[in-house]
Amino acid sequence: MSSRDEKAAKRFGCSERERALFEAGIKMGTIYHQFVGTPVSAYNAAELEKAIEMSVMVQPFVESVKIKINLPAKEKKDTYDYVSLTGDMMDAVVVIRIEDVSVTAEMRYDTELDYPLMYVSEVSL
Amino acid sequence: MSSRDEKAAKRFGCSERERALFEAGIKMGTIYHQFVGTPVSAYNAAELEKAIEMSVMVQPFVESVKIKINLPAKEKKDTYDYVSLTGDMMDAVVVIRIEDVSVTAEMRYDTELDYPLMYVSEVSL
Amino acid sequence: MSSRDEKAAKRFGCSERERALFEAGIKMGTIYHQFVGTPVSAYNAAELEKAIEMSVMVQPFVESVKIKINLPAKEKKDTYDYVSLTGDMMDAVVVIRIEDVSVTAEMRYDTELDYPLMYVSEVSL
Amino acid sequence: MSSRDEKAAKRFGCSERERALFEAGIKMGTIYHQFVGTPVSAYNAAELEKAIEMSVMVQPFVESVKIKINLPAKEKKDTYDYVSLTGDMMDAVVVIRIEDVSVTAEMRYDTELDYPLMYVSEVSL
Repeated sequence: MSSRDEKAAKRFGCSERERALFEAGIKMGTIYHQFVGTPVSAYNAAELEKAIEMSVMVQPFVESVKIKINLPAKEKKDTYDYVSLTGDMMDAVVVIRIEDVSVTAEMRYDTELDYPLMYVSEVSL
Repeated sequence: MSSRDEKAAKRFGCSERERALFEAGIKMGTIYHQFVGTPVSAYNAAELEKAIEMSVMVQPFVESVKIKINLPAKEKKDTYDYVSLTGDMMDAVVVIRIEDVSVTAEMRYDTELDYPLMYVSEVSL
Repeated sequence: MSSRDEKAAKRFGCSERERALFEAGIKMGTIYHQFVGTPVSAYNAAELEKAIEMSVMVQPFVESVKIKINLPAKEKKDTYDYVSLTGDMMDAVVVIRIEDVSVTAEMRYDTELDYPLMYVSEVSL
Repeated sequence: MSSRDEKAAKRFGCSERERALFEAGIKMGTIYHQFVGTPVSAYNAAELEKAIEMSVMVQPFVESVKIKINLPAKEKKDTYDYVSLTGDMMDAVVVIRIEDVSVTAEMRYDTELDYPLMYVSEVSL
């Protein structure tokens, strides 16, 4: 741990485990609110998935991140056949690790809820 | 609690307290990544603060949110004297409540760290 | 005109009229890509309209801007009944003025095209 | 031209040449306001450039787009050594083509203006 990491850690009024849950939430908010609105079609969906993954990887405490963009079914007919990325189209799995604690958070469109739910699927220990 | 709230709660592999920390993180990520880049000057700073606060209030489990935008000191000289909102310019305090648990999360530019740190300042109980 | 305005004007390899059309396009892209994804419900829709208008007003050469957010019809039933702003929900009218030229640009969901079309409705002269 | 392209063209109260300038502006606003705020470091800068380029390519009338991200000089020291993408860090060149008209628009940080200027560098004909 660097000196700056130690100073940052002192700002927190909670346990390391609790911080890992907070950091997982930050990454979910980042994925959604940074990238929703991006123009996407079959041409660039795989590239955009990779770019989102790599941009989340540079944030603190991210062990892994996996993004899947589910495009609406439509035929390419003309100039206007692309869409803006929405939360409903994205599946995300992010694993956060702080020291010995790991948190897995997920986002996916929940058909039963009719809502792109972000949730914690697993906490270690 | 509605039926949909109950169904959503079952998706979580963690305690209510841990969920509150996760939700706090989501809101911090939302504030930062939705609004960074917005054109701002003395003309619209107060309005933008209020709009950010109200948009976070419509998200689940938010009890209160307070935003302060700190504009760089500069004189209005011409057409180009406005800025794009950056994380360094924002102070945020968000209180999340789920049942009996409340979490206070903050974001502010930390001069010692030279970084706009998001942190948990308080967890109830 | 300030000295900085004059210097900026020299960077352009086109007429003032053509620049006004370019500036109108920039503002449309700003409205869409800055604000799509923002959490919105009946609680904050009017506030968000005003905040978008005022943030576009601080950009160069904007004479007026009018935003209308059309919320999907749904009853407030529970925690999850808000939406993320999409381009399909927004009507925008922006008037750009550079010297004697004025350009009116609009964005609205075009039902015939099934697309949130941005277009130039009027150019002066 | 598809039937939808023809219908969209009829919405415009300006020439094809003028529309090309408007479309160029839209793309500049998209690049700036969609991606400013994205976490970036040496690890993902090239990937992010490519993802921005490809997402602009799926928008209407884009012939080519080139993005260059100029990272601030800093050593990787700890967890917090990444930045959020700002307009000042981006160079963009976009070529729009509608029928026989091509427009080249650019964005780069202009040191003389101290501003990330978007401008039209060339219009054909």
